[in-house]
Amino acid sequence: MSNSAKLQGIFTPNLVPLDAQGDIDEGELRRYTDWLIDRGVHGLYPNGSTGEFTRFTVEERRRIIEIMVDQTRGRVPILAGAAEANVKETIKACEFYHGLGVRAVAIVAPFYYKLSPESVYAYFAEIGRNTPVDVTLYNIPMFASPIDVPTVQRLADNFEKIVAIKDSSGDIPHMIRMIQAVRPNRPEFSFLTGWDAALMPLLLIGCDGGTNATSGVVPEITRKLYDLTTAGRLDEARQVQYDLVTLFDAMLYSAEFPEGFRAAVELRGFNMGTGRQPMSENQSTDLGMLSKTLQCLLAEQGFTGQPVGGCPVQANTVDRTEVDAIVQNVLSELQRRGMA
Amino acid sequence: MSNSAKLQGIFTPNLVPLDAQGDIDEGELRRYTDWLIDRGVHGLYPNGSTGEFTRFTVEERRRIIEIMVDQTRGRVPILAGAAEANVKETIKACEFYHGLGVRAVAIVAPFYYKLSPESVYAYFAEIGRNTPVDVTLYNIPMFASPIDVPTVQRLADNFEKIVAIKDSSGDIPHMIRMIQAVRPNRPEFSFLTGWDAALMPLLLIGCDGGTNATSGVVPEITRKLYDLTTAGRLDEARQVQYDLVTLFDAMLYSAEFPEGFRAAVELRGFNMGTGRQPMSENQSTDLGMLSKTLQCLLAEQGFTGQPVGGCPVQANTVDRTEVDAIVQNVLSELQRRGMA
Amino acid sequence: MSNSAKLQGIFTPNLVPLDAQGDIDEGELRRYTDWLIDRGVHGLYPNGSTGEFTRFTVEERRRIIEIMVDQTRGRVPILAGAAEANVKETIKACEFYHGLGVRAVAIVAPFYYKLSPESVYAYFAEIGRNTPVDVTLYNIPMFASPIDVPTVQRLADNFEKIVAIKDSSGDIPHMIRMIQAVRPNRPEFSFLTGWDAALMPLLLIGCDGGTNATSGVVPEITRKLYDLTTAGRLDEARQVQYDLVTLFDAMLYSAEFPEGFRAAVELRGFNMGTGRQPMSENQSTDLGMLSKTLQCLLAEQGFTGQPVGGCPVQANTVDRTEVDAIVQNVLSELQRRGMA
Amino acid sequence: MSNSAKLQGIFTPNLVPLDAQGDIDEGELRRYTDWLIDRGVHGLYPNGSTGEFTRFTVEERRRIIEIMVDQTRGRVPILAGAAEANVKETIKACEFYHGLGVRAVAIVAPFYYKLSPESVYAYFAEIGRNTPVDVTLYNIPMFASPIDVPTVQRLADNFEKIVAIKDSSGDIPHMIRMIQAVRPNRPEFSFLTGWDAALMPLLLIGCDGGTNATSGVVPEITRKLYDLTTAGRLDEARQVQYDLVTLFDAMLYSAEFPEGFRAAVELRGFNMGTGRQPMSENQSTDLGMLSKTLQCLLAEQGFTGQPVGGCPVQANTVDRTEVDAIVQNVLSELQRRGMA
Repeated sequence: MSNSAKLQGIFTPNLVPLDAQGDIDEGELRRYTDWLIDRGVHGLYPNGSTGEFTRFTVEERRRIIEIMVDQTRGRVPILAGAAEANVKETIKACEFYHGLGVRAVAIVAPFYYKLSPESVYAYFAEIGRNTPVDVTLYNIPMFASPIDVPTVQRLADNFEKIVAIKDSSGDIPHMIRMIQAVRPNRPEFSFLTGWDAALMPLLLIGCDGGTNATSGVVPEITRKLYDLTTAGRLDEARQVQYDLVTLFDAMLYSAEFPEGFRAAVELRGFNMGTGRQPMSENQSTDLGMLSKTLQCLLAEQGFTGQPVGGCPVQANTVDRTEVDAIVQNVLSELQRRGMA
Repeated sequence: MSNSAKLQGIFTPNLVPLDAQGDIDEGELRRYTDWLIDRGVHGLYPNGSTGEFTRFTVEERRRIIEIMVDQTRGRVPILAGAAEANVKETIKACEFYHGLGVRAVAIVAPFYYKLSPESVYAYFAEIGRNTPVDVTLYNIPMFASPIDVPTVQRLADNFEKIVAIKDSSGDIPHMIRMIQAVRPNRPEFSFLTGWDAALMPLLLIGCDGGTNATSGVVPEITRKLYDLTTAGRLDEARQVQYDLVTLFDAMLYSAEFPEGFRAAVELRGFNMGTGRQPMSENQSTDLGMLSKTLQCLLAEQGFTGQPVGGCPVQANTVDRTEVDAIVQNVLSELQRRGMA
Repeated sequence: MSNSAKLQGIFTPNLVPLDAQGDIDEGELRRYTDWLIDRGVHGLYPNGSTGEFTRFTVEERRRIIEIMVDQTRGRVPILAGAAEANVKETIKACEFYHGLGVRAVAIVAPFYYKLSPESVYAYFAEIGRNTPVDVTLYNIPMFASPIDVPTVQRLADNFEKIVAIKDSSGDIPHMIRMIQAVRPNRPEFSFLTGWDAALMPLLLIGCDGGTNATSGVVPEITRKLYDLTTAGRLDEARQVQYDLVTLFDAMLYSAEFPEGFRAAVELRGFNMGTGRQPMSENQSTDLGMLSKTLQCLLAEQGFTGQPVGGCPVQANTVDRTEVDAIVQNVLSELQRRGMA
Repeated sequence: MSNSAKLQGIFTPNLVPLDAQGDIDEGELRRYTDWLIDRGVHGLYPNGSTGEFTRFTVEERRRIIEIMVDQTRGRVPILAGAAEANVKETIKACEFYHGLGVRAVAIVAPFYYKLSPESVYAYFAEIGRNTPVDVTLYNIPMFASPIDVPTVQRLADNFEKIVAIKDSSGDIPHMIRMIQAVRPNRPEFSFLTGWDAALMPLLLIGCDGGTNATSGVVPEITRKLYDLTTAGRLDEARQVQYDLVTLFDAMLYSAEFPEGFRAAVELRGFNMGTGRQPMSENQSTDLGMLSKTLQCLLAEQGFTGQPVGGCPVQANTVDRTEVDAIVQNVLSELQRRGMA
């Protein structure tokens, strides 16, 4: 792949395996990197939200990219999360990752303080003027200052180093508005969605790909959904999208993010170690139960055996009602915390 | 059409033409009804949110349905908005509209007070037990108590008179979750979307149709989008969906809802009269400007001539930026008012 | 009291006793009216949110005011909720209540559709120009379009018939901003708070009184809090305010509003009948348990005996933790429904 | 002051003066520290939200505390913001600041990811078990995961090193609920408010003090408000509170936080340097205009001269309407960004 090819396909926002002390487990991270590439993901996206970038130190974030670039050896492009404490530090990270040879960086809008569109523009403009490497804007209004449509358009129009946006809002009209605003002047600009539960429809209305957490767990399925959808095999794609919603909901809403994804990657055979966010005993117990549910969902697809004790008979529905109830509870929690 | 056929296709949530005193203009309403049917909408949906049902008296709401049933003479099915002040009054309305021969009623969840899922269930269960006519649930969390997925599932499972849901959230994963929860037990249950900006993708992931305000303005286009999408002509459908987003945004976000739609129906040749919500002078002026923008959008599609003074040269973009800016402003206003 | 005296003190937003069929129980309403006046409330406020005005028909709303005006016989001023389906109908209600001799009406901003400040202004301006009776603006952003500070200021500056605002946001800086904006030009304009949980601090920063739902249940306490606070006996007032928060939270957050208040008024000796919003069996059971908790709270203050089975030993804390947990759950529910 | 005295009074969450390159200006920081102490603030609170802690590196955050501890020489207690990337790093910071001799640390709940109450508890419990220095919980739901009442109660009950909460919600009933839940078991636990616009009423309902950004600009006024309120001189206090709201609103809502405060500290005679968040030209211009408004507000109180060109005649109102309009606009922006 040329270093300037349009970003497209499925980029995996990978978790980082840790050891028992909570430190980066380099061996597992290398093994996980290979495993993902072998299962067909189009690219890798370390230091994203799924990768818990805020919970690592500056030095650890750099080390994660070094390991993965080294292990990947150019087999797939790498999109490196590069957000740091302020614009100067972020530009330094862009330079460092450029030196490592990543395809592009992804930079979330400033968080904690929630900035106005004007300030978000000023922040990315400063980066656009100074970065040596291509930049993907990362819009995740649930966690960070939103990057609104006029801001995306201004940035795309003015900075050629800004080549893509990853949008995790899952809002389809919003994506349509962005595509309408940007494509006429920047036909090669790439639109990636981070919202697995709407991947098929977002591809159908014009997205180029996704950075999807499910692809770190079931890369086979996320890739299949991408292939079926882009091939226009809609009836098959729809069923895969339905299944992916069930799996995505179970991992996303049943435990503190991204613990559900971590538990699922364990089921695929990796030692994920001790997470960095402390967990209460109740939470550990809940996670054990979630792990069984996830194992049934994965067993159904042939990725694992069933858990001890087996799964509900009509496994392919796996108690949609229960998942729904969890989803509703968590959506209300999210609301309470101002996230949704 | 048999009286028990599944609800599908495009149902128009029609505005009500008023005279200079703000009273129902029966003549125009009859003419508008004919015009919509002639342009191919599959059904009519009076007394919806677009139809400003809350701004009419009980007697007026009944009169609107009487007029439209009489004028339609069975050419298309009618879905009559039937929400009243409390459950007893709502059931009386169901009985009355049943007597008129409507295909079904649509009932929004209780509003003003925002109820818990348990109370929303209790309300619709009481209706489900007593209604003589088929009922469509109407979920519009922007304005009324939400009807969540487990509640829809319980109602669908327990009451056969509840036959459909109209969902105006525009949230695709939510629609997928509802379809997954309800269809196994109720394959004939119908899912309609009220969110025009995502009509194509919602049809593609499994919806049966829509109750779309744009179909009251450009029934030709909304119908074309439906036809292209259901025929699998996706490249053409996508472009129509893009155009519809631009038009929808302009009507929805540029004036107090539903004034933008009212102004656009005027451009199609109807006297819409004086609205029931007072308007300031500034608002009247703004509406005049919006009307010109809308006329350009409609002229582009060949539905009207250009306004005096003409339209921007590259008419087919009609200043997407300006519309975007308006949309962003209004979205923030909506947020401020707790609506989005 | 002269008919033009400034509105001040505690106005009770009273519930309406119903009979077993859910119809207005005139006898109990008259008895309840007397009881409230006898316990020292400064005024009555029928057809407010606590009074479930949206769940009555136009005729019933008028009948409620007629009964209460007749029963009150001028002993205390009446503030009559007068919001109807549209501005014309609302003005008619103003005229009708004026004819009955109420001190003023209270009008909530339009709801269902959430209007912009410009439209809210236009609505109240039309009323301000045409009402024969003094008007209190009613701001309850949880349920209706908000009336923001510049809008209150414009209305106060332009319409002398608009004499007060009842604000149920409970937001103290917001109240300070309103007072600063309005008082210089309208020193007699009255500021009433509907948020019992902050009554003392709101009075201390400049409010003239409150329309407080607790005063329909424990008029003795709400009145005492008012008297202690306005007399500057702050240490005593603070303790009463703390107790009132516990009681208010229990009634507000433990059941669908206003069922907790209804259950509490029952404990004070009134037959409140069957509510208009259907209730599930679970909800009825929960309400039974809440009733016991409320009875313990009221027993502590000497208003009732203890329930069968007694109360927790340290009755004066009545399991704050449990109430807190309920409050947290409900606040998150409210958030989910876009209310808080 | 003994090292274990209850935290009370006004703690200034100070800004950090920077030089032209955006680096810490140690000389100005030392001068500013002295200036604040000389004007009577009871304590200092570096590395808070006003202090832009997230925009500094780990090393810079430590350096800021070192400088201020050294400069303060025990004259007033220091509350050091100690939140780092994860719980291990945060505990290391607690140890480091303990070694420097600070009175206590303040730790905001985890941000970016918004955690459940259970996770927030687990995070602070781990800190409570391991910190050598007293800890103040920092609740700022606008920016970080909320710390709800039951969580505060559990933490207070179980960890004696957790001695206070700083709450920036400004929600009075919430503060009352916390005090009711915690004080019976922990009478010495301290409640501080970060919401200047409600400082007087929060002190009156039971708070021990505040960490108020205005005290970094007009320490004389914030201190006066504290003194008048705690002395029970309510009429005087109320007027000061009103003035403080006007000033607070102007600084908070008229520019990207905390640029309005930075501009105001400049007016008090400090070189604040180049901020770390890039600013557009429009923003710089707006800030220049805000600076004039602020200068008029400060001139009124005798803290500065009037700006060139003078101030509006009725300086003591300083166009409340204009400030209100700005506040409304910004509140809606905050809403849009999920902050309020």
